[in-house]
Amino acid sequence: MLEQIDLTKKLSKKEYKEKMEYLQPQLAQLQRTCKAMGIPVMIVFEGFGASGKGVQISKLIQSLDPRGFSVYATGSESEEEKMRPFLWRFWVKTPPKGRIAIFDRSWYRIVQLDRFDKVTPEDKLHYAYGEINSFEEQLTADGTVIIKLFLCIDQKEQRKRFQKLMDDKSSAWRVSKGDLKRNDRYEEYKQINDEMLEKTDTECAPWTVIESTDREFATVKIYMAVIKAMTERIKAEQMKQEIRESKTSEEVSAEEPAMPLQMDVLDEKVMRTSSLDSVDLSKSYTKEEYKKKLKELQEKLTHLHGELYRQRIPVILGFEGWDAGGKGGAIKRLTEPLDPRGYQVNPTASPNDLERSHHYLWRFWNNVPKAGHIAIFDRTWYGRVMVERIEGFCTEQEWKRAYKEMNDMEASWTNAGIIVRKFWLQIDKDEQERRFRERMDNPQKQWKITDEDWRNREKWDLYEKAVDEMLIHTSTTYAPWIIVEGNDKYYARVKVLQTVVDALEERLGQR
Amino acid sequence: MLEQIDLTKKLSKKEYKEKMEYLQPQLAQLQRTCKAMGIPVMIVFEGFGASGKGVQISKLIQSLDPRGFSVYATGSESEEEKMRPFLWRFWVKTPPKGRIAIFDRSWYRIVQLDRFDKVTPEDKLHYAYGEINSFEEQLTADGTVIIKLFLCIDQKEQRKRFQKLMDDKSSAWRVSKGDLKRNDRYEEYKQINDEMLEKTDTECAPWTVIESTDREFATVKIYMAVIKAMTERIKAEQMKQEIRESKTSEEVSAEEPAMPLQMDVLDEKVMRTSSLDSVDLSKSYTKEEYKKKLKELQEKLTHLHGELYRQRIPVILGFEGWDAGGKGGAIKRLTEPLDPRGYQVNPTASPNDLERSHHYLWRFWNNVPKAGHIAIFDRTWYGRVMVERIEGFCTEQEWKRAYKEMNDMEASWTNAGIIVRKFWLQIDKDEQERRFRERMDNPQKQWKITDEDWRNREKWDLYEKAVDEMLIHTSTTYAPWIIVEGNDKYYARVKVLQTVVDALEERLGQR
Repeated sequence: MLEQIDLTKKLSKKEYKEKMEYLQPQLAQLQRTCKAMGIPVMIVFEGFGASGKGVQISKLIQSLDPRGFSVYATGSESEEEKMRPFLWRFWVKTPPKGRIAIFDRSWYRIVQLDRFDKVTPEDKLHYAYGEINSFEEQLTADGTVIIKLFLCIDQKEQRKRFQKLMDDKSSAWRVSKGDLKRNDRYEEYKQINDEMLEKTDTECAPWTVIESTDREFATVKIYMAVIKAMTERIKAEQMKQEIRESKTSEEVSAEEPAMPLQMDVLDEKVMRTSSLDSVDLSKSYTKEEYKKKLKELQEKLTHLHGELYRQRIPVILGFEGWDAGGKGGAIKRLTEPLDPRGYQVNPTASPNDLERSHHYLWRFWNNVPKAGHIAIFDRTWYGRVMVERIEGFCTEQEWKRAYKEMNDMEASWTNAGIIVRKFWLQIDKDEQERRFRERMDNPQKQWKITDEDWRNREKWDLYEKAVDEMLIHTSTTYAPWIIVEGNDKYYARVKVLQTVVDALEERLGQR
Repeated sequence: MLEQIDLTKKLSKKEYKEKMEYLQPQLAQLQRTCKAMGIPVMIVFEGFGASGKGVQISKLIQSLDPRGFSVYATGSESEEEKMRPFLWRFWVKTPPKGRIAIFDRSWYRIVQLDRFDKVTPEDKLHYAYGEINSFEEQLTADGTVIIKLFLCIDQKEQRKRFQKLMDDKSSAWRVSKGDLKRNDRYEEYKQINDEMLEKTDTECAPWTVIESTDREFATVKIYMAVIKAMTERIKAEQMKQEIRESKTSEEVSAEEPAMPLQMDVLDEKVMRTSSLDSVDLSKSYTKEEYKKKLKELQEKLTHLHGELYRQRIPVILGFEGWDAGGKGGAIKRLTEPLDPRGYQVNPTASPNDLERSHHYLWRFWNNVPKAGHIAIFDRTWYGRVMVERIEGFCTEQEWKRAYKEMNDMEASWTNAGIIVRKFWLQIDKDEQERRFRERMDNPQKQWKITDEDWRNREKWDLYEKAVDEMLIHTSTTYAPWIIVEGNDKYYARVKVLQTVVDALEERLGQR
């Protein structure tokens, strides 16, 4: 999840003030509603050192009635706590109905900070994730809202903040040796956190990554995340109570909500986390650069493909992207140097009758490559959370649980030794239009463009939001998404080939 | 799950014939309904060698339209299959809508047969359970019914069957060296299977243990399990479709089901799996025997308690049982020899207001003992699946998911080094009445008996069914239930003490 975060996001003072003027009374109101409805709320702050957890908690509680919440700082286990199961100290702090419990660090310490410091033994790590997921599942099933925030800054920003603290005698004590060690070994610590996020990003208690370089941006996003989660929970509770009173569905939808909920405000770009918005589409190569790089990479690929076959390593490459994003061209350059007996390109169209009579992942399982072979998918299983979601071909419940299903499928593949990479070919809306028109004007390319392409284009914003969520929930350490800057086809093709070459060389131990 | 199976169950020819005459057309009808409704069905046969998987599959398919099912025998992986993820060969065999797939051995091979034979590497075992549970969850979420049957016979019966096969030249080839090895090391193989059952006994795809000593009994129970699961799935599908057509709840219940479902037939004793029915309540001790044993065990306990404290090992003992089953007396004899600073007895009454405002497990987490201490619960968290279930204090969904929640809680405790044992004090209905009357007649015991006790007694059959399900779903290798034969109080008390002494000695390495 952390690979593709855009940490340059910020808000002007004016934007900040405007948004907070709206958000603060909203949160205060939601606290009252949760109290009245008996909904317990848990808010978890995790993240890098000096990312501002303390400051942000202060800002959050400014809007809350102090009689209704508790803040818990989670340090190392006390002697008393060490004598009990590690979840004990959190179970006893779970809030009663209607109260809010805020955790400055939490039960994640064991798989993160304590893991990095080698306080957590390896065997404990094995079951800790299972226990954590079960803990959150049990509480949310019982009605608790669990809001998990991960505050993210980069290595440089963290170093700067530590330096500033250390320069001032009155705050120097706040920077520990451990902090500096984690800054030095930032990448390693980030990997540990990334694994934590992907293993515990569940439907019942998802993570929200908070880009925290700009404090104002972070505050607004935290408010929005908290408000969104509480609002959704209240709505669900209202629905449940209304069903209990056995009203018909018509009456339910006609009824006034207990408070005016303006969800659209929460749907804006602040809530997006992937770096799709900030992709630098100006990246390009000259024709000469392209030709040279292509030749080099294709020669490498020919050799690597042979090695793959010899060592019996299977590979799965998935291609997604905007219509006319350049998938076909990239796949062509990728397969040119490959032995045709050792790879297969699987185009993914709408499911046929046989496919429709099976689970939606069945047809992809059918095309899992043999050891030593490469399977390339032109469009993939991710259709479930893009076109099927947007066109209503599946229910909300279905596409929401698909994130886990697809992560699990790719984990199965990775466990079996398969190399998995997924490419998102990104172009901007203008470039797409240019390409559409070119296709229409060129008799040899006209078959590539249909009315449906133009219709999809009208839903650009909906797709953008769906793609953002997809990238965040399904980019894993074992099967990452690679965002390919696609306005320049040369650049895109080279990046795809380079990524594949890197992945193969890494596995084959040639780097 | 396997510890408490009663393998002596059988049916007379007459009973068998009567039941089958009813069950066979039912199954045929259900196959047609599933086909019409597009429900895919998977039936998994696992179990000990020579438990009759082949025979039972033949008997099952006698009632099925052969155009609507496929049978797959799962042997070792072929060369082709070895080149792909282990679930691949099962994914491609998942049935399309409306068809039935029957598996003679299945994806469980990897965590069972292949594990015993050390074909499955240790690291694979770690993720195999996760992949299996995810596989079944995905398919059932999509509408597939997965029916998992585990055919059980004991070591002696298995040996007898192998011998019979070997005595006949025409069938001797059917007994492999592996079969004989697994018979020799029956207990070890049983443990592996038991772990498999408890790790994969999920709400979406639960196991049914089939007592297979008597083939007729097994056939009937298999038919019942299959019919029950298919019927429930059809009902759920009907509900869903009716909600989709947005009828009001009144109309739904008034409507005729697509076929006459007689669930009560499936609810009889054949479907029970725990050995509660066959407990030998005549077991008893004379007063002299009792006194002698009690003294010995109590002396041992005093010593062991000190050792526990020194080695900082915590212990949790839960007591459940029929009213007047003798919990109080057993707990008294257990605590007499203990240092009062090192144990606590927690009586579990109806939750108070504070407890009610938290998750139902919160109060038990609060009473988790410190390292070196013993926590005794007089009535436990299992109230959720007994009194709360029967009195309707929680929803069906809530008590159904409670099995996993309680197993997970006990797993957390075990992971933290706590010894967990649970006692069910069993008496028969006559003995209960005798004790109730004795309490009423004895002024010093009158406080122990209330009108509620008499009311609960009227629901004996409902409780019996709930207790059976509880024992099967929550008796785990790490936190087993011990059924205590309780008609004779002397015998019961000694068994409780002996079990605790054994458990402590085992952990303290004194045996």
